[in-house]
Order: sequence, then structure tokens, then C-alpha cells
Amino acid sequence: MKIAVDAMGGDYAPTAIIEGVIAAIPDLEADAVVVLIGDEQVVRPMLEKYPVPEGRVEIVHAPEVIEMGEHPTKALTQKPASSISIGFKLLKEGAVNIFCSAGNTGAMTVGALFSIKAIEGLLRPAIAGIVPQIDGSQSIMLDIGANADCKPETLAQFGEIGSIYYKYTFNVEKPRVALMNIGEEDQKGSLVAQAAHVLLRDNKKINFIGNIEGKDFFTNKADVIVTDGFTGNIMYKLGESLYPISKIRGFKDQFIDQTNYEAIGGSPVLGVNGNVMIAHGVSSPLAIRNMLGLAYRQVKADAYRHIVKALS
Amino acid sequence: MKIAVDAMGGDYAPTAIIEGVIAAIPDLEADAVVVLIGDEQVVRPMLEKYPVPEGRVEIVHAPEVIEMGEHPTKALTQKPASSISIGFKLLKEGAVNIFCSAGNTGAMTVGALFSIKAIEGLLRPAIAGIVPQIDGSQSIMLDIGANADCKPETLAQFGEIGSIYYKYTFNVEKPRVALMNIGEEDQKGSLVAQAAHVLLRDNKKINFIGNIEGKDFFTNKADVIVTDGFTGNIMYKLGESLYPISKIRGFKDQFIDQTNYEAIGGSPVLGVNGNVMIAHGVSSPLAIRNMLGLAYRQVKADAYRHIVKALS
Repeated sequence: MKIAVDAMGGDYAPTAIIEGVIAAIPDLEADAVVVLIGDEQVVRPMLEKYPVPEGRVEIVHAPEVIEMGEHPTKALTQKPASSISIGFKLLKEGAVNIFCSAGNTGAMTVGALFSIKAIEGLLRPAIAGIVPQIDGSQSIMLDIGANADCKPETLAQFGEIGSIYYKYTFNVEKPRVALMNIGEEDQKGSLVAQAAHVLLRDNKKINFIGNIEGKDFFTNKADVIVTDGFTGNIMYKLGESLYPISKIRGFKDQFIDQTNYEAIGGSPVLGVNGNVMIAHGVSSPLAIRNMLGLAYRQVKADAYRHIVKALS
Repeated sequence: MKIAVDAMGGDYAPTAIIEGVIAAIPDLEADAVVVLIGDEQVVRPMLEKYPVPEGRVEIVHAPEVIEMGEHPTKALTQKPASSISIGFKLLKEGAVNIFCSAGNTGAMTVGALFSIKAIEGLLRPAIAGIVPQIDGSQSIMLDIGANADCKPETLAQFGEIGSIYYKYTFNVEKPRVALMNIGEEDQKGSLVAQAAHVLLRDNKKINFIGNIEGKDFFTNKADVIVTDGFTGNIMYKLGESLYPISKIRGFKDQFIDQTNYEAIGGSPVLGVNGNVMIAHGVSSPLAIRNMLGLAYRQVKADAYRHIVKALS
């Protein structure tokens, strides 16, 4: 299995990326090879400082970098030799099994749509966030930021693709799918949420358990939490703020530790013809290490192939 | 000052309400008189179990009750002798200075619009939630549930009325008003949030500091957080879930304790011609006691009079 990582993406790249990869290698199964994509003149000397086991890390040269602030479409067009452009080229060719980056999120989602493309029948791709639960389990929420405005049909489809992703990646036969809303009753919520509720309820392919509320976010009420990318992004970042708050306030708890973005490391982009994972711009080596673990699991599950089947 | 309390509103009424009132009396200033509205035959015997200081609690008889599940408009029309209907009658007549209830939230907001009415020039009333901050201060967020769908103009006005409420109730000359969004940059967010940002920025009557994100919810970035009632309700309930989570998980922190809904007790309804406060249906005696403290403060500030002036 080849896990491609953007060596140049993220606020602390390439140092944090390379350190994260080095830290991940001992944990990853023996069949996992990490492909670092970036400026070889920068990456190779850094990598050579570490005792990397034979054949576990490869470098693919990419002389250009798409910066965090750049316009995604423009940058991808103007920089074909950027690490993001080359990562997607390799993914499309099947030379790697997944492409991960802590770089420009917009360039990552647009890049996926340009290269491996959206799955036929998909309305909108989504970014799924992994949400730690107080009982130690993990749920996913989608969308956490790719689509600030969502139609009811889009939300309903998030329920379906999220359910498939969760089923194969987390090995749960019938994931509980819920709609994030402002009340448990069916008719509650915004006009979009009300309409999405009906569509989710009528979809016999998923195990829709109804609406959940903000208070249910961490209490393992659902495996797959459906919401628009506006609400989802705000909730997700609120959740991630709990770990730094615990550090400032000086309290400690294992669940709160799991809200640390570093403990999760990455978020899959769902709805595209391949495995794509994005990470926080601020990603530390620990975050990169954990992202690679999740990436391995995602490739093993290859849930996107099941999404292709379901939508065809 | 007369603080009217719905003795029949809430899951544990009238017991929890009466116990909360009894607990509040020693803390309230000497000029505060609590007016309990409810079935006198039920309320008086319960009240007489306690040594209530002379002249601090009055009872106004209201033989009917609007139940939690009832349709607000229908219930208010069909039950003119309900505690909520009578509470608003007294408020409209000026016989009381504020009306508080842990009962049917819909009946409370509709009741306010029917009786004391929306302030002239108001687009939509809002429920403001008090949000504890990690430094011990308090911010407010509006709307937390009265309006699941909001137009940009409505959000912009929330910024204005929230700023006035905060200024007079929390004694801050120029409250920092922020828009809850998915990025700090001006052009980020849903179409509604983008348009609201421009309106808020152009409003010279408020101290608009721009967008904030989910991670800024508890970190005292803003005094007044503007959002729609869908996102606001979900965030607020997520915040309130932290205290019960700390109990389940067994960690303790003073800030987390403040996320307990009982520590706040009530949420003002803003944009109507008078002081109205609602509380959780599950309100305990402690929640009722703290709501009364907040109610006293709200009457002293009488921010609604300043909102009337600002919108005229």
C-alpha cells in the first residue's frame, strides 16, 4: 500500500510532516510505504537525518508549492509541478492508494474534483470529521466545511455516503445515522433540516435514527452525524477547542484529550473516486503520525468503491 | 421591583419553582418581590411550608396550565387563565417588571409578541443565551433558538440589539460584536453569513470585530456572538453538555461548572417591549434561583427601553 503525503503542505512543513512520517513508520503495517511528495532537494536531506527502514519511505519530486492563501483553481492550473497537483496525478494513475495533505484545503478538494473526480451521481463532496465520544468510540460528522450552504438532497446524500464510509472503515454493520437539529421531534429545525429529515427517513438504505441535538454530539447517540458545512465546521472547531481549554484551565481527562486535533490527525474527503485525506494547517508531527494511521485504515476499507456502487 | 415567575412552567413545576424562589429570596435585593403565578390552591400550601419573609412573595391565581407539548398560539387563545397568559397580562399592564418561565418556550415567545409586542422596527425577536468564558467573564449569543432560519438583515439587527442588551446589563461601554462563522476572513461562510458580515461591518452603531470561529466560543473573543437560531441552538446545547460530561467522566473545573445550565438559569427574549426570560424545561431549584438573580439585573438595566430608542 502506498500512502502519499504532501511534504510541503501545512504551516510547519516540511519539518513537521517528515517528523510525523518517521514517527508513524513503526506503527504502520509492514505493507505500508509512505510516498513523500515535495522538493527533493529539501526533503531528502531532512529525511536522511533519520534511520528510515529500507523501502518504507519514497520521495517524489515536486518543485512547486501551493501556499495556504492561494486561490485553489488558479493555483492548481498555474502550478502543475506543485506537491498537491502531483499527489493527485499519482492518485489518479493508481500509483498511490491515498493522498494526504495538511496544505491548502480548497486546493485539496478542488484538486480531487479535477483529477479523480466526483463519484457519478454525487451531488457534493463532503469533508468528514471524526468526533471522539465520551465512551471511547468515534463517530463521524459530515460535512465539516466543504459546503457552507447545503440543499436537503445534499444532506440526505451525506447520510448515505457517510453511512457507507463508517460501515467499511469502522466495521459497523448498520451505522446509526442522525441529523443534527434543534429538537428531537421530526418537524423541528430550519426549512432545509426539515426537508432533509424527510429524505433521510425515507431512505431505506440507511439506518436513520432521527434528529439529535447539540447535547448529543459527544454522547454516542449516532455513528454518522449529518449536517451542513456551516454548522458542522463551527461544531467541529468548538469540539477541538476543548483540549486547548483543558490545558489553559488545568484539568485532565482522557475524553478531552481525544478532542485534540492531533489525536485524530486527518479528515477524509468523501464522494470522490479515491482516498483523499486532509489535515489541519497547523498539523504537528503527532497529528501527521495519527493521520497516517487513519489513512492506512481508510485504504484497507476502500469505502469509496462501495459509495461508487451505491450511487450508480 | 416585581419579578413574576410562572409557578406552573417546567418539568418539575411547581415544586422546583417554589423551592428556587425560596432559595433566591435571601440573595435578592430588598426591593425585589417575587410574584408567583399559578394555581393558588396548589401554590399556597407549598409556599406555606417555608418561612417566607414578609412581603417578599406574592401569589397571583392562574387556574390553567399550558403544557410543554401544546401548540403555542392555540394554547394561548384557549387558555386565557393559564399562568403564561396571566403573566403576560400583568407584564403588559406594568403590574410586574419582568416575566420568567421554565414552561413552553413557544408559548413564551408567542405570548410576548401577542401581549407586549415586538419593538417597532424589529425584524425578529431573539433568545439570547449567556455563554460562560474561560476567563470567568460572560458573553451572550443570539439567537439560540427562536428563529431557525434568519435573513442577513435579521442577523445584523441581532448584533445591534445584542450590543445594547450587553452594554446595559453587563456594563460594558462598547461590547465587541462578532459573527459566528467558518473562517475569520470577511468573505467566508454561507451566503447568509457573508451578507450579514457586510451589514454588521457597515453598522456604525456597534463595535463589530468581524468573524469568529467555533474555537473562539469560550475564549472571550467577543461579548456578543451573532448567529442564526439553528447554529446558535446547536452550539448552546453542545456547550451545556460539557457539565454533565464532566460529571460522567469525573473531571472538575470551575469553567466547566459554569457551562451547567443551572449556573445561568435563564435566557432573555430580546426585541420585545418588556423584560421576558425563559428557562430550561428541566429547571431545578438552583436554576430558578439563578434565573431570578439574572432577572433582577435585567430589570435594573431595562435594556429594552434603549433598544426601543435605537430602533425608532
